[in-house]
Amino acid sequence: MRFISETTSNGVSERLFTLGDVPGVLWSPLDATGSRPLVLLGHGGGQHKRAAGLVARAHRYVTAHGFAVAAIDAPGHGDRPRTEQDERITAGIRERRAAGEPLGPDVARHNAALAARAVPEWQATLDALQRLDLVGAGGPVGFWGVSLGSAIGVPLTAAEPRITAAVFGLAGHEPLAEAAARVTVPVEFLLQWDDELVPRDAGLALFGAFSSREKTLHANPGRHAGVPAFELESSERFFTRHLLRGDAPAEPAGSSAGVEGR
Amino acid sequence: MRFISETTSNGVSERLFTLGDVPGVLWSPLDATGSRPLVLLGHGGGQHKRAAGLVARAHRYVTAHGFAVAAIDAPGHGDRPRTEQDERITAGIRERRAAGEPLGPDVARHNAALAARAVPEWQATLDALQRLDLVGAGGPVGFWGVSLGSAIGVPLTAAEPRITAAVFGLAGHEPLAEAAARVTVPVEFLLQWDDELVPRDAGLALFGAFSSREKTLHANPGRHAGVPAFELESSERFFTRHLLRGDAPAEPAGSSAGVEGR
Repeated sequence: MRFISETTSNGVSERLFTLGDVPGVLWSPLDATGSRPLVLLGHGGGQHKRAAGLVARAHRYVTAHGFAVAAIDAPGHGDRPRTEQDERITAGIRERRAAGEPLGPDVARHNAALAARAVPEWQATLDALQRLDLVGAGGPVGFWGVSLGSAIGVPLTAAEPRITAAVFGLAGHEPLAEAAARVTVPVEFLLQWDDELVPRDAGLALFGAFSSREKTLHANPGRHAGVPAFELESSERFFTRHLLRGDAPAEPAGSSAGVEGR
Repeated sequence: MRFISETTSNGVSERLFTLGDVPGVLWSPLDATGSRPLVLLGHGGGQHKRAAGLVARAHRYVTAHGFAVAAIDAPGHGDRPRTEQDERITAGIRERRAAGEPLGPDVARHNAALAARAVPEWQATLDALQRLDLVGAGGPVGFWGVSLGSAIGVPLTAAEPRITAAVFGLAGHEPLAEAAARVTVPVEFLLQWDDELVPRDAGLALFGAFSSREKTLHANPGRHAGVPAFELESSERFFTRHLLRGDAPAEPAGSSAGVEGR
């Protein structure tokens, strides 16, 4: 892991790095020492490791909770070379969005191919991050990523026992269900009720496929890009519950939740 | 509204009252003066106004946020007389639960009949509560109730413009959809993925029927009575967001939620 540059703002250090030919970014509290929870952020399709939403989320996690946060460019994204197929798929998605059509099996296959490359890249990144003093080995690790971030994050979480909690969503293609069935850590899953790219039933089916004892579906009205702002806070609480408080898997609230009876 | 008794514990005043022949309970901060948000709690079927879950929730809302909280016995519940039909329906539900069968249309019809009586009772209760100094008129009012609490609460909220935010769930019978379509205030809706009494599709359909611009579905694995403890906190944040902070309806987070891209 080679660090290339460091900038700081509002008490947050942002360091760009490369690991082999994969470019990444690490956010952490300024002058952080000692181990801390780590959250990995997976960006959406057509986006990159420093997309505005990821930067805002990283700053929040660092300043409010002292987490370390990292993102890498997915294959064919950000500062990485794009193949002819990448360009063709991107153009195809643009056309489907313009036409209001759901993403088809070609995109699901392309994303699965991206994931097959991205999963070992994330694992090597996690190895390197855990060798840093300010992260450390053996601590809690969260993953957040929706849409393409889930196409990669679900198989990553299935393969990677170091990830202890994950936020996914805006995804529901068939190939993901098999990986989801191997995920057992707590999951918060975002679904947009009127998602023009992911059919509602496909999203519900993917939520159903996770083997996690604790999994919680948050569905809201609106299109693919319309996740409401309050879900930002909800994801944050999900991570603090699982990465900081180290809660045991959720138990039914029983009578204390006031839902006794019918 | 005639107050019958007052007990206090942990800084919470609990006053039993009757309004006509409807028995109720009001929780409030000890020595509260001046208006404050009010939350109405609807109990589940076979339960009553002082079920353990309602008491725990009321104490939390009073001590953490200074809300006033009220509950009344539904027709045929708690301290109210039960008709022969009430007894028959209750026995039928017990049998269906034992057999693992969903609640049928007979229960839905019975609940609709209960709701037709309970809605004006709740409205008269709200009139009386808002005449109290410690509640006041014109302030924010929330409703929380799942299962039978929703069978009554959904038509109540549809009919009652003073209710400004509501938590519903564990319900999905056909007659409720029509009332749900007349609800426009923010709604948080709880669904149990493996609910033995309410088919999953019926719950999803009821969520879909609300006309609210902000509505959020929280689905969790488990049976009817297995709502996880973290949903207690979530309902509380929902009410503080809408009754205290007075948020405008949710706006898409756009790029700040990091969900740009696909």
